[in-house]
Amino acid sequence: MADQYARTGEDMRSTGMPVIRWEEPPEGPVVVLLDQTRLPTEEVERVCTDASALVEAIRSLAVRGAPLLGIAGAYGVALAAARGFDVDEAAAALSGARPTAVNLSVGVRRAASAYRSALAEGGDTGAAAAAALVAARALHREDAEASARMAEHGLALLDELLPGGGHRILTHCNTGSLVSGGEGTAFAVALRAHRAGRLRRLWVDETRPLLQGARLTAYEAARSGMAYTLLTDNAAGSLFAAGEVDAVLIGADRIAADGSVANKVGSYPLAVLARYHHVPFIVVAPVTTVDPETPDGASIEVEQRPGYEVTEVTAPQVPVAGAGGGIPVAPLGTQAYNPAFDVTPPELVTAIVTEEGAVSPVTAEALAELCARSRQVTIS
Amino acid sequence: MADQYARTGEDMRSTGMPVIRWEEPPEGPVVVLLDQTRLPTEEVERVCTDASALVEAIRSLAVRGAPLLGIAGAYGVALAAARGFDVDEAAAALSGARPTAVNLSVGVRRAASAYRSALAEGGDTGAAAAAALVAARALHREDAEASARMAEHGLALLDELLPGGGHRILTHCNTGSLVSGGEGTAFAVALRAHRAGRLRRLWVDETRPLLQGARLTAYEAARSGMAYTLLTDNAAGSLFAAGEVDAVLIGADRIAADGSVANKVGSYPLAVLARYHHVPFIVVAPVTTVDPETPDGASIEVEQRPGYEVTEVTAPQVPVAGAGGGIPVAPLGTQAYNPAFDVTPPELVTAIVTEEGAVSPVTAEALAELCARSRQVTIS
Repeated sequence: MADQYARTGEDMRSTGMPVIRWEEPPEGPVVVLLDQTRLPTEEVERVCTDASALVEAIRSLAVRGAPLLGIAGAYGVALAAARGFDVDEAAAALSGARPTAVNLSVGVRRAASAYRSALAEGGDTGAAAAAALVAARALHREDAEASARMAEHGLALLDELLPGGGHRILTHCNTGSLVSGGEGTAFAVALRAHRAGRLRRLWVDETRPLLQGARLTAYEAARSGMAYTLLTDNAAGSLFAAGEVDAVLIGADRIAADGSVANKVGSYPLAVLARYHHVPFIVVAPVTTVDPETPDGASIEVEQRPGYEVTEVTAPQVPVAGAGGGIPVAPLGTQAYNPAFDVTPPELVTAIVTEEGAVSPVTAEALAELCARSRQVTIS
Repeated sequence: MADQYARTGEDMRSTGMPVIRWEEPPEGPVVVLLDQTRLPTEEVERVCTDASALVEAIRSLAVRGAPLLGIAGAYGVALAAARGFDVDEAAAALSGARPTAVNLSVGVRRAASAYRSALAEGGDTGAAAAAALVAARALHREDAEASARMAEHGLALLDELLPGGGHRILTHCNTGSLVSGGEGTAFAVALRAHRAGRLRRLWVDETRPLLQGARLTAYEAARSGMAYTLLTDNAAGSLFAAGEVDAVLIGADRIAADGSVANKVGSYPLAVLARYHHVPFIVVAPVTTVDPETPDGASIEVEQRPGYEVTEVTAPQVPVAGAGGGIPVAPLGTQAYNPAFDVTPPELVTAIVTEEGAVSPVTAEALAELCARSRQVTIS
């Protein structure tokens, strides 16, 4: 497997099966995906021979996670081009597969632009398809590199904050290679610590209601050979009280200009617990997560999700029963409060780690400087 | 229904069906139980015609909750006596149905002692059976009265702490009539506030891993006509941050002499969140919950429960699959940290409310005084 990765240069992740890869068997190019709807009980690959198969895979959440969706979209355009389909049509279908996922359409546009530019410069469709593939691979590689840099900066910070080593890290939701072109954000830092022999324990919050921690992070930790333990979200308090947590590492869905962090619901209570127990609370996210247009935490609109995610339990093998396709566990008609995210104010965040370095303490000025530095790098 | 309750005098609770009741149809006396394993989707009663049916109901958790188990045990002895079975044999079987439930054997002993005393005083078996039933009814009534007094003291405290009224109360786990001879502990206070028109919202933590909040507290709230909303445990942080919680009300499994409170896992994080947001954190429990033999929180041994409660999801209608009879949601072999309880130190507890009154601030001296007062009352 290591040889194969070295050969394609596309995927250095730790899980046994690459989450996404481009292959060129004699019958023609394909995009191969790890079907995330079958995890953690089965590892099944889906082979997509055209863009519409990829659209279906995106719609059914077989492939998910913002950065990974961008990469999938770019490969989808390259696939349509290589197979001689209408590239504009494929690009539109891919972008529309999950309309709210910004990264998806960004990835699609990048590959489609490369295709069109090559044609405009007088190349034939073969050369243009090759250009689209180069663009998709570049996006994939850049994302992997950003992960690697976040992991490096994150571990350096951990070592600085916790000079004793033997880190016991608590994480929430899913932030590893299943959502990224590389090894992810917060999970990538824990993985780097593990490889350096300095991870004593990864505490994995199950992350209700959708159980991304139990289903996906536990899977990635198991696949990576890490010492990990799963817990209900409400058991984290007992771990803190027992002195069993050295640091909290989470990702971010959006970071406001003032450093407020929107992330999966359940992150904020961990920040309060961490503060109460004097434990570092560290956010790991690429610079693109910082949104200068959002001034502060109060300006972040939090998506309210359907109540049936709370009033029913679902699992891959459970027969459909309730409105949400799960088994009711609360009285019929129960109203549920189900915010997708919560917001942690900057004063509770010890540090924000990006591919450009860490910001600590978290201030609007320091974040702005980091973003400016990142844009300079991009422009140069 | 109100008439029936008034007639029997046994059950004034708010749920549609009494949780336990003694009936005397022409065919002979029976104990009728609300089968809690069928909640919240179905309300089904189990009619127990002999003590062994009650033993089976206790074993299968059709009847559960410490105080309620004591009452069930006492009625079981009365039932065996009334039906002419061997009372000692029935008492032994009932006590052994769940060996760690102290209240169960206390209830059994109380009814069995009444039976034996009546015989020793020269009564016939009919008179002795009647004495056992009187003892069971007395236990039932005392528990209901203690609930009522806790509710009264609790609401008075709420009104004092939150003079504005319109209380928005967050609760955890299940503390209502399903676990009590009356209306429970923390839930009884919320119910009293509701009846007084002063409950604006009951926020119900689902209470992972066994979902007692979703399954049972939501059921009791719905049955009582309260305005309630269910949430995942980790969404409580968002409610606090939005200023939507006026007070936290929880029960207790054990209270140490210093005022440390052991309760269902997830209580301690609520206490930390409540402190961070300057919200009262109130514990409601009978005086018998205070254990003078346990000096402090560190002396409370917390039961670790099987990992499959976390790694699998279960629901009444889910087919058996995993080791715990549920559907796996984490990789096979995943290790889980699954403490049944956590411990909240007295400095995070605003008040402890008992049937003898409230203690606030919570100190060892104040608790000891309360316990002494309670014993005086019992002796007199």
